[in-house]
Amino acid sequence: MKSLSRLLLPLAASLAVSVTAIAASPLLDADRTAIAVQLRDKAQADSGAYPIVEDLTTRIGPRMGGTAADARAVEWAVARFRELGYDKVWTEPVTFPVWDRGIEVARVVEPYPHSFAIAALGGSVGTPEGGITAEVVSLPDYQALLSATAEQVEGRIVYIGNRMRRAKDGGGYGEAVIARSRGASKAAALGARALLIRSIGTDVNSRTPHTGMLSYDIAFRKIPGAALSNADANVLEHMLAEGKPVTIELHLGASERGEYTSQNVIAEVTGREDTGKVVLIGGHLDSWDLGTGAIDDGAGVAITMAAGKLIADLPRGQRPRHTLRVVAWANEEQGVWGGNAYGEAHKDEVADHLIGFESDFGAGRIWRFDTRVPEAALPLMDAIAEVLKPLGIERGNNTAFGGADVSAMRQNGMPVAGLVQDGSKYFDYHHTAADTLDKIDRSDLDQNTAAYVALAYLVAEHGVPGHPGSTQAQKQDD
Amino acid sequence: MKSLSRLLLPLAASLAVSVTAIAASPLLDADRTAIAVQLRDKAQADSGAYPIVEDLTTRIGPRMGGTAADARAVEWAVARFRELGYDKVWTEPVTFPVWDRGIEVARVVEPYPHSFAIAALGGSVGTPEGGITAEVVSLPDYQALLSATAEQVEGRIVYIGNRMRRAKDGGGYGEAVIARSRGASKAAALGARALLIRSIGTDVNSRTPHTGMLSYDIAFRKIPGAALSNADANVLEHMLAEGKPVTIELHLGASERGEYTSQNVIAEVTGREDTGKVVLIGGHLDSWDLGTGAIDDGAGVAITMAAGKLIADLPRGQRPRHTLRVVAWANEEQGVWGGNAYGEAHKDEVADHLIGFESDFGAGRIWRFDTRVPEAALPLMDAIAEVLKPLGIERGNNTAFGGADVSAMRQNGMPVAGLVQDGSKYFDYHHTAADTLDKIDRSDLDQNTAAYVALAYLVAEHGVPGHPGSTQAQKQDD
Repeated sequence: MKSLSRLLLPLAASLAVSVTAIAASPLLDADRTAIAVQLRDKAQADSGAYPIVEDLTTRIGPRMGGTAADARAVEWAVARFRELGYDKVWTEPVTFPVWDRGIEVARVVEPYPHSFAIAALGGSVGTPEGGITAEVVSLPDYQALLSATAEQVEGRIVYIGNRMRRAKDGGGYGEAVIARSRGASKAAALGARALLIRSIGTDVNSRTPHTGMLSYDIAFRKIPGAALSNADANVLEHMLAEGKPVTIELHLGASERGEYTSQNVIAEVTGREDTGKVVLIGGHLDSWDLGTGAIDDGAGVAITMAAGKLIADLPRGQRPRHTLRVVAWANEEQGVWGGNAYGEAHKDEVADHLIGFESDFGAGRIWRFDTRVPEAALPLMDAIAEVLKPLGIERGNNTAFGGADVSAMRQNGMPVAGLVQDGSKYFDYHHTAADTLDKIDRSDLDQNTAAYVALAYLVAEHGVPGHPGSTQAQKQDD
Repeated sequence: MKSLSRLLLPLAASLAVSVTAIAASPLLDADRTAIAVQLRDKAQADSGAYPIVEDLTTRIGPRMGGTAADARAVEWAVARFRELGYDKVWTEPVTFPVWDRGIEVARVVEPYPHSFAIAALGGSVGTPEGGITAEVVSLPDYQALLSATAEQVEGRIVYIGNRMRRAKDGGGYGEAVIARSRGASKAAALGARALLIRSIGTDVNSRTPHTGMLSYDIAFRKIPGAALSNADANVLEHMLAEGKPVTIELHLGASERGEYTSQNVIAEVTGREDTGKVVLIGGHLDSWDLGTGAIDDGAGVAITMAAGKLIADLPRGQRPRHTLRVVAWANEEQGVWGGNAYGEAHKDEVADHLIGFESDFGAGRIWRFDTRVPEAALPLMDAIAEVLKPLGIERGNNTAFGGADVSAMRQNGMPVAGLVQDGSKYFDYHHTAADTLDKIDRSDLDQNTAAYVALAYLVAEHGVPGHPGSTQAQKQDD
């Protein structure tokens, strides 16, 4: 207990009690847990994450993949990791096609002249010269499109009006977003000229449309797709309710132009044993172009950068055994390009990746700790969950998603965790012009960082039993 | 009491009790009060106002003075008054200069490239060809501009950052709006090249800028003026906080082009004695171009149209003695052109205008009943206040404003009333793209209409003691 007492010097008595309680778990090293608790509580008091996202949204603002701001964001991330005292900072190339938004105009020609606030869907083709003027066929949801006939749809603009359900876990997104992701090709298959959808968002009274990617099925013609703001979708539905034909004129200047190479920005805080094994965390550096990408995903970048900085500030002897690797991922929005490039480049290094988890669900408080780890690691994860508990975090399930950018590595065999945020308000602002710094609560961001630093520290210390990397490490120990 | 019993047939017993209580006031005719109470309660149950504003915002949408939609709105109002069964419908011309918004672009050149969401201020001149690129001088409020020096301001873009205070009675507006209305000329007097302000609105986290008129002082050069959304103002302030020079490039395509003649649309429900005397109510038909003008002022048009329709539906014998006149005012937003034209055209008819009041403060519930009437009319107004009380409306003061569009007639000597709405949320959406139908609560709108119909009915019945028109009327009675 000598070293524990030394480490506990800066801690208050009450804290020492909770640490002792946690240290009772035979699975966690007592000294190291005390450090994790210190880091957790330091982060919760003032994690340093907020100034990072303030800086990113102020200096760079929107940073869509392939834009000039994408390059500036990469420079920013490299410089910022260095300033924060990370031991190693490097970049790895990520190449993708560049999509330009261009102009976006939708207006009702008949029966009542009216302009709509719209956003082209990411990856959409543009309209032909002169735009598209066609009657609207209205469908309540994607299911209705699946059962629509060519007679209903041919030559028309398909409108899909489904409203997204609000939920703490964001569960309404999957149900609703299929209209955006798959609607264009399904409509094209029936001869439609364009797709308009009610924005995939939970703001029922906003004038800000929500962008986001669509996917084309190569079997069908590419038709343009755009989202109406919820308020404009209401207006369209009021018009349609009269039963008269509604004709819309649509102009989208969207286009693809060549390829661009951005960078995953990667930084490490070397572990005290420098084993070559890493805990992989991060957020994605790119954002959509409409807002300043504060909650999607400046918050994730800031939370994970700040968590790493707290560990970087520790004396080498107090660091965890293994290394913490933080990635500011490139172009997640347009197809998880950064995560997939990393998965490809590092596919033979699964054993060196102890666990991965990404912060990419806004800036709400974390309320649940999920994992996807080998059975043998569950007792350790349950013990770690006790350290997260004082943050208001409950232990969840072992079917964690991990995050889009670590999915390729997860599929390669890397264990993942999920520090699940409260996403109740996330889809009010997601992919809109309203994704700005003011949506972030500073203390919530600190709570996030507290969870990230504690979890990252303890897994970097103890590894993930049952995972090849950890087994190997244990063998070396034996 | 015979006629009262007959009139009360459709009323529930509990209502009859309250009517009896009110009828105890010797100042109000019992039979007529019973009708007013019936109208009030009918309106509260379903006033018909909501479908009117739904229709206006759907069929016409934004209807800025001088646009094609202004003309369509006039046609709409004429047709709608007729459909509602008003006895007389006519228009009176209102001529004003036409202001075009044009393009609006503001971007930070240094230190961090960034685009801002802005709205040109109504009446602003445009920027010269090539725009204006200049360093920003930041001032906390209009007072600071008054004490600024030419040295600070000359050749620069003045930014005024004051934040508007939220208040039920909208009291924060006057304090804040002077930056918008007077800032440009004060800045020009010190040699500034343009004015940027933080939007005059209570939304602290919105990306929608608030437009609204500025006024030029003829003594100074006209410089362009625009409002930043609150979120963009925050970004600018974060940049300024670093202490480095911030340079902005501003392009405004705003311009004036000739004159346009719109119309006040006027409709009457003739009183049973057709005395030629009127109670004057209304809302303004025009709106800003950014939203669909639902709360400013589709709501006011709908509330007053629906109130009149409830009276129009009465058999002639149950109508009030005098006439109800409802006006859908032309171009209030750009300088109260409709109200002023009416004041000029009808300045010799003050004696025929018993009272006037306008609904132009959104769609929140009415919570106070103010008046500005001769002393002799106060007991009557207090008695009428008892009829409004069940709607949750308290009796206010005798210094009512009446509304912008009745101000000219008020200055001519017409008494006014004020059915004061809860404006707590009004300035979140005021003059923005977010002023759309979804901001209106149907039951609140019904409560408004209930107050309008009851007050209008009772004053149209009893007149305003002490006002020339009413005195004269009483003389004829004697």
